[in-house]
Amino acid sequence: MSRVRIGLVGAGRIGAAHARTLAERVHGADLVAVADPRPGAAEALAGPLGARGVTTPDAIFGADDVDAVVVAASSTSHSALVVAAAEAGKHVFCEKPAGMSLAEIDAARAATASAGVAFQVGFNRRFARDFREARDAIADGAVGSVRMLRSLTRDPGDGPPDPGAVPPWTIFTQTLIHDFDTLAWLNPGARAVDVLATADALVAPEFRPSGLLDSAVVVIRYDNGAIATAEACFAAAYGYDVRAEVLGSHGMVTAGDGASSSMRLHASAGRLARTTHSDVALLGDAYAAEFDEFVDAVGEGRAPSVTGDDARAAFAVAEACIASMQTGSRVGVDVGVAA
Amino acid sequence: MSRVRIGLVGAGRIGAAHARTLAERVHGADLVAVADPRPGAAEALAGPLGARGVTTPDAIFGADDVDAVVVAASSTSHSALVVAAAEAGKHVFCEKPAGMSLAEIDAARAATASAGVAFQVGFNRRFARDFREARDAIADGAVGSVRMLRSLTRDPGDGPPDPGAVPPWTIFTQTLIHDFDTLAWLNPGARAVDVLATADALVAPEFRPSGLLDSAVVVIRYDNGAIATAEACFAAAYGYDVRAEVLGSHGMVTAGDGASSSMRLHASAGRLARTTHSDVALLGDAYAAEFDEFVDAVGEGRAPSVTGDDARAAFAVAEACIASMQTGSRVGVDVGVAA
Amino acid sequence: MSRVRIGLVGAGRIGAAHARTLAERVHGADLVAVADPRPGAAEALAGPLGARGVTTPDAIFGADDVDAVVVAASSTSHSALVVAAAEAGKHVFCEKPAGMSLAEIDAARAATASAGVAFQVGFNRRFARDFREARDAIADGAVGSVRMLRSLTRDPGDGPPDPGAVPPWTIFTQTLIHDFDTLAWLNPGARAVDVLATADALVAPEFRPSGLLDSAVVVIRYDNGAIATAEACFAAAYGYDVRAEVLGSHGMVTAGDGASSSMRLHASAGRLARTTHSDVALLGDAYAAEFDEFVDAVGEGRAPSVTGDDARAAFAVAEACIASMQTGSRVGVDVGVAA
Amino acid sequence: MSRVRIGLVGAGRIGAAHARTLAERVHGADLVAVADPRPGAAEALAGPLGARGVTTPDAIFGADDVDAVVVAASSTSHSALVVAAAEAGKHVFCEKPAGMSLAEIDAARAATASAGVAFQVGFNRRFARDFREARDAIADGAVGSVRMLRSLTRDPGDGPPDPGAVPPWTIFTQTLIHDFDTLAWLNPGARAVDVLATADALVAPEFRPSGLLDSAVVVIRYDNGAIATAEACFAAAYGYDVRAEVLGSHGMVTAGDGASSSMRLHASAGRLARTTHSDVALLGDAYAAEFDEFVDAVGEGRAPSVTGDDARAAFAVAEACIASMQTGSRVGVDVGVAA
Repeated sequence: MSRVRIGLVGAGRIGAAHARTLAERVHGADLVAVADPRPGAAEALAGPLGARGVTTPDAIFGADDVDAVVVAASSTSHSALVVAAAEAGKHVFCEKPAGMSLAEIDAARAATASAGVAFQVGFNRRFARDFREARDAIADGAVGSVRMLRSLTRDPGDGPPDPGAVPPWTIFTQTLIHDFDTLAWLNPGARAVDVLATADALVAPEFRPSGLLDSAVVVIRYDNGAIATAEACFAAAYGYDVRAEVLGSHGMVTAGDGASSSMRLHASAGRLARTTHSDVALLGDAYAAEFDEFVDAVGEGRAPSVTGDDARAAFAVAEACIASMQTGSRVGVDVGVAA
Repeated sequence: MSRVRIGLVGAGRIGAAHARTLAERVHGADLVAVADPRPGAAEALAGPLGARGVTTPDAIFGADDVDAVVVAASSTSHSALVVAAAEAGKHVFCEKPAGMSLAEIDAARAATASAGVAFQVGFNRRFARDFREARDAIADGAVGSVRMLRSLTRDPGDGPPDPGAVPPWTIFTQTLIHDFDTLAWLNPGARAVDVLATADALVAPEFRPSGLLDSAVVVIRYDNGAIATAEACFAAAYGYDVRAEVLGSHGMVTAGDGASSSMRLHASAGRLARTTHSDVALLGDAYAAEFDEFVDAVGEGRAPSVTGDDARAAFAVAEACIASMQTGSRVGVDVGVAA
Repeated sequence: MSRVRIGLVGAGRIGAAHARTLAERVHGADLVAVADPRPGAAEALAGPLGARGVTTPDAIFGADDVDAVVVAASSTSHSALVVAAAEAGKHVFCEKPAGMSLAEIDAARAATASAGVAFQVGFNRRFARDFREARDAIADGAVGSVRMLRSLTRDPGDGPPDPGAVPPWTIFTQTLIHDFDTLAWLNPGARAVDVLATADALVAPEFRPSGLLDSAVVVIRYDNGAIATAEACFAAAYGYDVRAEVLGSHGMVTAGDGASSSMRLHASAGRLARTTHSDVALLGDAYAAEFDEFVDAVGEGRAPSVTGDDARAAFAVAEACIASMQTGSRVGVDVGVAA
Repeated sequence: MSRVRIGLVGAGRIGAAHARTLAERVHGADLVAVADPRPGAAEALAGPLGARGVTTPDAIFGADDVDAVVVAASSTSHSALVVAAAEAGKHVFCEKPAGMSLAEIDAARAATASAGVAFQVGFNRRFARDFREARDAIADGAVGSVRMLRSLTRDPGDGPPDPGAVPPWTIFTQTLIHDFDTLAWLNPGARAVDVLATADALVAPEFRPSGLLDSAVVVIRYDNGAIATAEACFAAAYGYDVRAEVLGSHGMVTAGDGASSSMRLHASAGRLARTTHSDVALLGDAYAAEFDEFVDAVGEGRAPSVTGDDARAAFAVAEACIASMQTGSRVGVDVGVAA
């Protein structure tokens, strides 16, 4: 099976992490190019990894030695980049969210479908070992009928981004989007019906006037009756924390443990499990595994296991949350139509 | 210090557990009488414990050898029993809730205040070791400013009670009432502002027409900005489960672990921690500790650490939940006035 | 069932703890007297607990209002006290070890047998919930045939006692004696065959010339083929630590967890489980439970579940350890004869 | 930095696992050839991984496109293969043990030193994340002076190998050799002084006459006074289990947790952590990391962090164990001389 040649768009924090993962950990992928508009940024990242740096996405989309594109640029550009890549005939892996509106995401879905290329969205928890084992247990019936779910995302203590740097409602569209997808995936076959969102600027109250909320709880109802809670906060002093819990008629599964390893240090104060303050440390294996899936799907000519439909479903929940924040009441989720 | 002579009203399941705890585990208490209207029930329980059985509460309220009363009868009778006991000059420990409406609870508060007797409500989690350590850590500033909380109560898998046997909205007034108190206690000095309730009959859908809901999630906002989730379900196949989690600006505390002990059994399927299917097994130490507090308060002539004000505050949240269920929207919590 | 009236001999650290446990936690026991030769010591302890203080054991052995004696004096006096108590017709609970030689222990066994009184030795781990659950699992066949065992005792970081205050080989006769009993109990029906002891003064090397060893590992072989390790150290900076592990043909059980509760504090450094630096905190429930067993046995006129035979079997291992230390080689365990 | 071209000797179980790890997970390595004498075995393994299969080690040692050799053949051939590879100028990674006697290991050390090639031995626990964190904590002084250690290796329940297929004393030379190295590494700067070994055929008593022991405990004393226990068993029904525990003057570190992930399944019997029944599942990351170290050392022209000296030190303990088994007494460890 020939290797998949990857072009990466975006050399920021997550782009850099993905570049290293692709170059060093993904059997079956060759990182050949990185694009970033900042002078020298792409080259500085790509060079040591044996790839070339370019300054425009088009230099990747137009390259003959690129089979597939990984989009890790600013969220506001995701949809346009997916569309352009698809139109150039490239397979696309796009970081979440796949767009900043349902319309943008639908455009990305339509373009990739029309071009017949693979389209995968970066819902990394589906590839974390504990979350996968939880999902498998649920799918095997180990918990029976799903009734109550919880999914949680907390960033370590660096606090919320500058309001100038991120779109409003970013806690729903960029953070909780992970939880919305995780909850749907852990509740197989169910569809979100409506949401009730509660959010505030508790970490950085000074950003409240800008609309930058950093702490949120969302209650979601599904068409199988299940009730879920999604929770996020931009400042967890103890580290990066992603967890899920699913209660069914026969039992419960839980996933997520911020301990950096099973090492325990016992000193006068007690027994300490060190936690992880970096998403790359916590989710590094999941990042590699999601790219493995992408590369396998491209190589096998099949759709990846995480699709544009999943991206749309999660974003529809985020949009309903925004409406719920604006109205203060329960809001139905746009169930969409086939792309 | 002389011992406190206790009369117990109610020989049902929890009454029987309390009788044994009072007789066998509470240093400083003497169980002298048990009242229950069912012929022989009180005597059967009281006799082997060295106490006498009677058939009416009045036989306890009027007894000279009773200093204090423990009310463990049906919830609908709690308030009237507290009032009658107080008027008879007895100190009162009342199982939660202290009444089925704010008016009932206010009547109980007024009667006990007027009589100058101690009045404690059975919020047992305040006396569970892990919850107490969590509260102490919070009060000591270990987590900084409280931002996000969660409290959860799940009964083991016997399912919801018969709709004929319990009042409507029992999941709010009788189960989540624990969580409402726990959350307030773990968020020191804060007061609930409003609630959004979501609930359904997922365990026993056949009881939905009767209004008996068995699964619920409530989002509560506090006047210090903190956002809490309270969650309950009447059927957890894996056992009795009470937990809390508090995220603050400096860290997080968690409490609650259903394992029956630190014994672990490692067999082919994995490493098993046995869980606890009985509240008495899980919370037995807390039951003894709450009675120790009551007896100490009576002996020292002081108010117990859990008061009628706490009972009122928790019930006000439950009432707001009922209104939220009826309107589908966010409902303010009655902040009350001093009794 | 009438209550058992207890006289306690010894008002030192463990004596004081036992006095409080007997007075406050043991249903069925009344602490009536405490004896200690130090002026005022017994009275200071006994008075607030509603008992009287005396200065000689004989004042307890000769008292008509004492049914049973708890011996918590210096280990070197244990055997003589047990004999005297038995000769006075009192039931006896004796802290471990029941004597400082097999001859002393046999004397205690003979005296109690001859007097027809109950005789229980303070092997507290048999009454700790997790150890009991482990034993029950083993007895139920959950691990199959027992092959490898480990038992461990570590005191918190206060270090070894003064060599002038304790007998030589105290790590074997007073500390590991617990582990020798625990291992036998967790290997039902088996008998220790021989031992290999390794020990040193690692915590307080300055006491090595006095023969006060503070760190030890013992390998024990049993007549069912099982091989056990017993380990002890007089200084664990992280707290009091008692654990056991049993590997059998079908699985493994483990017991022992120094965490003071299931509360976890998550801060920048990680997730902390507080540990316990006091045996009374860690084993308080076990202390109460072993006295419950003693009181029940006395009340029911039966032998306690931990007998003088168990005391002898554990001490025989300790004696073999001392011989192994002196010879540097494997030493057989005296299997004894019926008392 | 150019990639290191690897030839692998041995296509058995561990050889196959190493081939896949080298081909798929080790950035910086190219697997180019696999040798195995069984017809077709090497080709079947190598082909799908893009490498060639050969039938003799010499076909690898003589190949111009091979920079380094990984030896994963039968233990009895390790030393001769290392010598031959070194004489051919190849860098060598050798599975443990590096030989079946100190003389064999010294020959391997001498040959690789003389040829100036890198020589690493497969002590994989040094590359497991939790063990590394434990070692780092110890090296940073987190536990103070090391006093008591424990290291343990248990294979899942498949039982001991056929006595015809493995050399005698294999539990010491092939299994506990890991623990002997781990203990030395977790006790930085110390050297084993003497050992006392206890072992038996508890899993397969029918192999006792053949000298195949399957269960062992070894007590090791070090020149810094520390006392260690190494324990192994060939049949743990609950899965593959490697653990370590180090007690020092300031605290304790522990490493090793057989749970396959942090997923927990809560059902009626309790909370289950699934265990791992395969060394590749449990130690896969460590296998990749030890090859990363080897490739980095070769690329940087430096000695690997695990050397032939470490191989010798561990084997010297194993040899002392065999002597201890034969004499029944404590045996000094050959401290060796520089190769």
